[in-house]
Amino acid sequence: IAAFVQAASTGTWPDYQLSALLMAIWLRGMTPTETATLTGAMTNSGKRFRWDDVPGPKIDKHSTGGVGDKTSLILAPLAAACGVIVPMMSGRGLGHTGGTLDKLAAIPGFRVSLSEEELHNALKKIGVGLLGQTAEVAPADKKLYALRDVTATVESIPLITASILSKKLAEGISGLVMDVKFGRGAFMKTFETAQQLANSIVAVGRANGVPTVALLTEMEYPLGRCVGNSLEVIESIKTLRGEGPKDLEDLSVTLAAHMVQLGGLASTLAEAETQVRKALVSGAGLEKFRQIVAQQGGNPRCVDEETLLPQAPLRTIVRAERGGYVTDLHAEKIGIGAMLLGAGRQRSEDAVDHAVGIVIRAHVGEPVSVNEAILEIHYRQEKDLAQALPLLKEAITLGDQPPTRGALIRG
Amino acid sequence: IAAFVQAASTGTWPDYQLSALLMAIWLRGMTPTETATLTGAMTNSGKRFRWDDVPGPKIDKHSTGGVGDKTSLILAPLAAACGVIVPMMSGRGLGHTGGTLDKLAAIPGFRVSLSEEELHNALKKIGVGLLGQTAEVAPADKKLYALRDVTATVESIPLITASILSKKLAEGISGLVMDVKFGRGAFMKTFETAQQLANSIVAVGRANGVPTVALLTEMEYPLGRCVGNSLEVIESIKTLRGEGPKDLEDLSVTLAAHMVQLGGLASTLAEAETQVRKALVSGAGLEKFRQIVAQQGGNPRCVDEETLLPQAPLRTIVRAERGGYVTDLHAEKIGIGAMLLGAGRQRSEDAVDHAVGIVIRAHVGEPVSVNEAILEIHYRQEKDLAQALPLLKEAITLGDQPPTRGALIRG
Repeated sequence: IAAFVQAASTGTWPDYQLSALLMAIWLRGMTPTETATLTGAMTNSGKRFRWDDVPGPKIDKHSTGGVGDKTSLILAPLAAACGVIVPMMSGRGLGHTGGTLDKLAAIPGFRVSLSEEELHNALKKIGVGLLGQTAEVAPADKKLYALRDVTATVESIPLITASILSKKLAEGISGLVMDVKFGRGAFMKTFETAQQLANSIVAVGRANGVPTVALLTEMEYPLGRCVGNSLEVIESIKTLRGEGPKDLEDLSVTLAAHMVQLGGLASTLAEAETQVRKALVSGAGLEKFRQIVAQQGGNPRCVDEETLLPQAPLRTIVRAERGGYVTDLHAEKIGIGAMLLGAGRQRSEDAVDHAVGIVIRAHVGEPVSVNEAILEIHYRQEKDLAQALPLLKEAITLGDQPPTRGALIRG
Repeated sequence: IAAFVQAASTGTWPDYQLSALLMAIWLRGMTPTETATLTGAMTNSGKRFRWDDVPGPKIDKHSTGGVGDKTSLILAPLAAACGVIVPMMSGRGLGHTGGTLDKLAAIPGFRVSLSEEELHNALKKIGVGLLGQTAEVAPADKKLYALRDVTATVESIPLITASILSKKLAEGISGLVMDVKFGRGAFMKTFETAQQLANSIVAVGRANGVPTVALLTEMEYPLGRCVGNSLEVIESIKTLRGEGPKDLEDLSVTLAAHMVQLGGLASTLAEAETQVRKALVSGAGLEKFRQIVAQQGGNPRCVDEETLLPQAPLRTIVRAERGGYVTDLHAEKIGIGAMLLGAGRQRSEDAVDHAVGIVIRAHVGEPVSVNEAILEIHYRQEKDLAQALPLLKEAITLGDQPPTRGALIRG
C-alpha cells in the first residue's frame, strides 16, 4: 500500500497499473486496517500542517455533499465563537452538489487560496480559516481521484474514506465531525451505504489518531430554502442572524455542538449545544463570520447589505398548478437544475456563475394555493432557463395531504 | 465488449481504462457468452484468413505449453500426410516453457515469417505451413496481452480463452484440437483449472463456429527426452522415424488422430489413429516434414544429418549420486534450467540460443546405478552452466522404488 501511494504521488508507476489496482480495490474492498494504512500513506504523501503554537482544540467538519448544504458557512463561525480552532479546507462543487469553496468565492474579494502562513495567521487571530486545498496536500489523492473518475471506481467505501480523510488529516486537526448524507440528493443514495461509509470514516479517523464522529443526515430535499452560491451565502448570514430556516439552523447547531464537544470545550452534547445556541443568539457567530470575511480579503459590509453580493439579472417564478401541499422537491433534480442555470459544474473545468440559483418559496410540507409561487429562479440567460426549467418543474410534486417527514438527523 | 476490443486495437481508449477493465474481468470473470463475444471481437480486430481454394479440412492444434513439448513438429506433418490442411501459427517460448517457433528457427535457413501468399502457396502445395503470428492477426490481443502482463491479469480463464482462440480462429480453420496441460511444468498447475480452461475453449470455439476438442494432459515431467530447440528438432525427427520416446510418440499420434477425425477424414478416433500410425510407419510423416523444411527455406538435409543442426560446444553430465530409480524430474525446474542455459527467454525481448539444452538420459521410472548419467547438459558458457546446474540437480529425485505414473492423457 505504501509503495502504491508513493508511486501515485511521484508518478513512478504507470497509470495503467494504478488503475488496475484501483479496480481491484473497488471490486474486492479493503479491510479496515488496509483502509487506515492507505489513508495514512495518502496523508503523508504531502504537506501535513501542525498548529502547535495556536492554543485550543483544532476541529473540522466535513460533509459528503448535498443540495443547499451551506452548513459550513454557519457552523465554522459558531464553533470558532465557542473557542474551537477551525482550519477548514473545502472543495469545489461538481454535478448536482455544491461546494463550500464556490459559496465563499461568491463574496466579493474573498480569497480562498491562503498560504500556510496566511492560514496560520488567521487561526491565531480569529481561530478560523476557510480555504481550498493547497497543491501540497495529499498529492496522491489528486492523482488517484483523477484516475478513479475515468475508470468508474469512484464509489468505493475504502477509496472514498481514504480520499476524504487524507485531506482532513493533513489539516492538523485533533478531531473531525462528519456529516454523511444519504438520499436522492446525496452521493450515497441509501441509509445503509451511508452508514457503511460513516463507520469506515470513523474507524479510520480514529485509527489514524483523530477522534471522529459522524452524523447520518437525510438529503431527500434541498437543505434550507436557497440553492446557488450567492443565495446560499445570504441564507447563511440570515441563519447566523437567527432568521434562517429551522432545518438548516438545527443541523448547523448540532454539527457545531459536536465540534465543541469533540474539542473538549463541553462535557456533554447538551452543554455544547447550549454554548453554540448562545453564540447564535448573542450574535457572536455573525460577528465571527464578519471577521472571517475581513480576514480573507472580502468586503465585510456584505454581511449587512446583501445587495453587495452577486445578483442575477433575471428572475422567474414557478407556480403551483393546483392547490394543496408540496409533497416533494426532488433534491437531485433541483441540484441539476441549479447546475444548468450555471450555479454548478457539469465538468470539473467548468466556470461557475455565483449569482444564479433557486429560492424555495414553498418547501416540502407547506400548503400552497393554485398559482402561488413554489420556486423563484434567479438566472442570467434565457437558454439556461430553458434547459433548467423542465427539470425544476419535474422536481415538484403537489398533493392533498402534507407528507410525513422523518427526522433530518437519523443516526 | 465490441467497443473495448475496437478501442484496444485502435488505441482510442487510454491504457488506464483498458487495464481497469482487464482487472474487472480478472476478478469477476465472464459468462460463456461474454467470453465468446470477446473472442469473436478480438479475432475480427485483425486479418482473418480464408482458404476457400485449398481443398481439404483446415485443422490446427494448439498447446497451452510445457517443457519438452515438441508435438507440433511431429503431428503437423503426420496430419498433413493424412490429408489435413494445417495452417499453424505458433508463438515463441517464454519463461520455463518452449515455443514451437523457436524450435523451427533452429533449423538452418527455416523461415517462420511467411506472407499470406507464401502461406497460401505452402498450403496448396504441401498442405501445411508453420509460421509465427503476423502483425495483422488479432492486434487487440497484442495490446491486451501486453497490458495483462504488467497488471497481474494474465491468469484469467476468459482472457486466456480469448487470447488463444482469437489467434487460432484467424487462421481460417474449420476445427481445432487443444492440448491443455496441467501440472508443475504447465501454465495451469492443477487438473481442475486446466479442465475449466479446456471447457471454456471448447465452448467458445464452438460458439464461434469452429468445432473444438481438448485433451487434458499431464505436465509434471518433461515430455520426451530432450529440452532445448535444436535438441527437440532432432528428437522430433527421430520420432517421425519411429525411434522416438513412447510418451512423445503416443501424444503426438493421438493429437494428430483428433485432427484427422475432426477434419472428417475418419469416422472414429480409432480409424483416425490407424491412418496416423500408417503415416508414421510408412515414413510419409517424415517425408512431409522434409517437404515443410524445403518449402520454408530450410536445409532438408538436416532431416538425415542431425549434425547440420546447431550444436552446443560444451557438454557435461549430471550423474546419479546413488543407485535406485529416478522418481522425479521436476518439469518446471528443468524448464527454467534450460532457459538459464540460453534455450529460452526470461523476458520477451531476450535472444535464444538454439543449440543449448538438456538430454534426459534416465527418465522418471527408469533404474540407475550410482554415477550413471541422468542429464546431459549442452551448453555454451560456463557462467550459464553455473547458474543452471544447481536447479537441474534439484529437479532430480532418486528413490528405491519406481514411482507409479498415471496416464499422460487424463481427459
